[in-house]
Amino acid sequence: QVLKCEYAVRGEIVNIAQRLQQELQVKPDSKPFDEILYCNIGNPQSLGQLPITFFREVLALCDHPAILDKSETQGLFSADAIERAWQILDQIPGRATGAYSHSQGIKGLRDTIAAGIEARDGFSVDPNDIFLTDGASPAVHMMMQLLISSEKDGILCPIPQYPLYSASIALHGGSLVHFFMEHYLNTQESFYLLLAKSKGITVRALVVINPGNPTGQVLSEDNQREIVEFCKQEGLVLLADEVYQENIYVPEKKFHSFKKISRSMGYGENDVSLVSFQSVSKGYYGECGKRGGYMEVTGFGADIREQIYKVASVNLCSNISGQILASLVMSPPKVGDESYESYCAERDGILSSLARRAKTLEDAFNNLEGVSCNKAEGAMYLFPRISLPDKALKAAKVEKTAADAFYCQRLLNATGIVVVPGSGFGQVPGTWHFRCTILPQEEKIPAVVSRLSDFHKSFMEEFRD
Amino acid sequence: QVLKCEYAVRGEIVNIAQRLQQELQVKPDSKPFDEILYCNIGNPQSLGQLPITFFREVLALCDHPAILDKSETQGLFSADAIERAWQILDQIPGRATGAYSHSQGIKGLRDTIAAGIEARDGFSVDPNDIFLTDGASPAVHMMMQLLISSEKDGILCPIPQYPLYSASIALHGGSLVHFFMEHYLNTQESFYLLLAKSKGITVRALVVINPGNPTGQVLSEDNQREIVEFCKQEGLVLLADEVYQENIYVPEKKFHSFKKISRSMGYGENDVSLVSFQSVSKGYYGECGKRGGYMEVTGFGADIREQIYKVASVNLCSNISGQILASLVMSPPKVGDESYESYCAERDGILSSLARRAKTLEDAFNNLEGVSCNKAEGAMYLFPRISLPDKALKAAKVEKTAADAFYCQRLLNATGIVVVPGSGFGQVPGTWHFRCTILPQEEKIPAVVSRLSDFHKSFMEEFRD
Repeated sequence: QVLKCEYAVRGEIVNIAQRLQQELQVKPDSKPFDEILYCNIGNPQSLGQLPITFFREVLALCDHPAILDKSETQGLFSADAIERAWQILDQIPGRATGAYSHSQGIKGLRDTIAAGIEARDGFSVDPNDIFLTDGASPAVHMMMQLLISSEKDGILCPIPQYPLYSASIALHGGSLVHFFMEHYLNTQESFYLLLAKSKGITVRALVVINPGNPTGQVLSEDNQREIVEFCKQEGLVLLADEVYQENIYVPEKKFHSFKKISRSMGYGENDVSLVSFQSVSKGYYGECGKRGGYMEVTGFGADIREQIYKVASVNLCSNISGQILASLVMSPPKVGDESYESYCAERDGILSSLARRAKTLEDAFNNLEGVSCNKAEGAMYLFPRISLPDKALKAAKVEKTAADAFYCQRLLNATGIVVVPGSGFGQVPGTWHFRCTILPQEEKIPAVVSRLSDFHKSFMEEFRD
Repeated sequence: QVLKCEYAVRGEIVNIAQRLQQELQVKPDSKPFDEILYCNIGNPQSLGQLPITFFREVLALCDHPAILDKSETQGLFSADAIERAWQILDQIPGRATGAYSHSQGIKGLRDTIAAGIEARDGFSVDPNDIFLTDGASPAVHMMMQLLISSEKDGILCPIPQYPLYSASIALHGGSLVHFFMEHYLNTQESFYLLLAKSKGITVRALVVINPGNPTGQVLSEDNQREIVEFCKQEGLVLLADEVYQENIYVPEKKFHSFKKISRSMGYGENDVSLVSFQSVSKGYYGECGKRGGYMEVTGFGADIREQIYKVASVNLCSNISGQILASLVMSPPKVGDESYESYCAERDGILSSLARRAKTLEDAFNNLEGVSCNKAEGAMYLFPRISLPDKALKAAKVEKTAADAFYCQRLLNATGIVVVPGSGFGQVPGTWHFRCTILPQEEKIPAVVSRLSDFHKSFMEEFRD
């Protein structure tokens, strides 16, 4: 199972990039570029994005509560950060930020998160449905562990998908049942369910990533309702990856959680089994290193809930700083708080810059010969499709590489730009893509565009039939 | 696999305790005790142990580096904490404490940890052998995932064992091959290997917890050498749980890592496959909530190493605060540092208090009728054996409970003291034990002893044949 598992965003291309970076350090003039630009992974702070000040103030104070009532602290920290730290400490039994918590996470923090989801969706949330986790990845693994007992258990995933899903399904010995549909525009999934059945596979769950990774789509409400209806009718667990809920860049689209959609269709606890994943790694905060997140688990029987709890218990609990941060992102400063204005300025600055970067890159890709790029509605990625000349396909074959990996390695060696070949995510056979994050700092975007465009032109020239 | 998995330290007894605690909150006079005393889990800070100031200072500064060069900071933080925070930030690419790191953890922190292990053992360490993890539990799961592909793969564990191992082996679908031997005094393991083989099970690895959980033993060097030799001869991976390496309470015993023992026997990289687990949750620091730790992986081929790396990659990386803390516990303040004396006072205060608590509880247990308690040489637990009267065994049978669970539930209901039944760890059939931590605050120990002794007397009276 481990051998079968592949994880493209940290795969071969990243190893090559790290080698090039080491070579650059030793011999700065040895390459046609002076730095490696990591556009392979949604890791904003590694590319210079700064953390949100209020969040870090609260984390620092919770890490070292001994300074909370010192006078110097008031000069260093905002008043609402100090107040929030006190509130959080009071929610932790014995104010012990160094203790294991309840396996689902600190109850008071789950209350805060529940209130945040209620404010977002307008439907009630039970804090006991919240499981705090070290980011979304362990939460996904936990659910796969519960859903899969052998290769006869299938998980339905749209292709392209984020490799966390394929990797996790492989690790737990299940079958990934794919369907090719970039935008979930209709529910052809039934066909794939039947196909799976004919192979002896029982499909247990459907994965939906919204906003989408790698394709950046934001689903329409109609489409979301169709998906909920489909899961209800087929008795599938809906695994809703909603970690990009804050990352929407076009005014005509809005985020709606699947929980809200499901409840607004009149479906309650007993109608649809639904897991919503959230993470502190994405959004405008991008706190990947903190490993915080949660899943909201609804519509499961008490017996299954007990098993989810047991699996959560085996790792004792998620890290407390990550738990605190998850509560903060679901309950940021409010009007009237000392930090409110600076917080909004930081948040909006990041989100509007991301929107500009997304649009610039999207336009640039669409300007390249043989490249068509999806609209960057949300998330942190573009997934341009590239029509490669036959000569390039043949050259890739000679090197025993997938054609998109061949293109991406050429790009990396020529420009230092790291993108992930589409084959790591899955794509319609015979089509080629790559995934590029929108995260390089804004002042570097023009250089990314020109280096990438120059490379693409010379690549197309070299392999023109 | 999930159904099979059990995790006693967070099991049924804890659920009862939480219910009692809620009842106490509503009606403080409803029980014969006024608080629940959690002696079920090694979670020192939940029972009032304070964190080490220097560690928390550095963590806070790394969480909010913006204050590092403010003048107020010098009034609030020690000079060496500020210096260390700068050093750590300089080891993180872009000083980005909010970025995903290398899947094995930040290289500079691994260098620090490697140097700490070298100083401890006197043998060289390759920083590339270090994998930073969210505590020891995920590291153990990672190794079980790699070692187990079906129920034909066995892991040899001494009984009693810490339920993380039985739970993890069950979750990954392998077979726990046990042997009854509290102190690894001889290598009867061969017999159990043959027995497993006769059932079609191939034993892949041997688990050793040293200092021991739940039995608190510290292995002699001779015994450690026998274990290394046994693993070498049988070609077993040695999984060395060394998370209690700082917790030794008797002057005649010392901690020796299995790596040091193996190297001092002349065995190198190619002779023994060895994984050493360490955690920030134990020791004198007890930072359970931070979820930090590492494993040092030696003696595996490049192909296996690649697979370990892949499994680590699927969760991206462990949390950065936990990574920083793991580097700090392996490199605490040194002579001449501003914090050195206060650090030593904090550390020695905790360790000497733990030693006194261990001795007091050990003596108290040994004074009870029908109870014999192991010597508390190390770790955080006592594992007294209780001879229960036949009448009690029958009463347990009527309630369909294991006899030790029956005793522990009675104890909890009468005194509010939570201990874990020995059956959660495994024990020689027909014997009964419970595990009790040595962690209640020192001023509460007399009350623990008297409540427990009173309960035990009345229990024995009630069930006297």
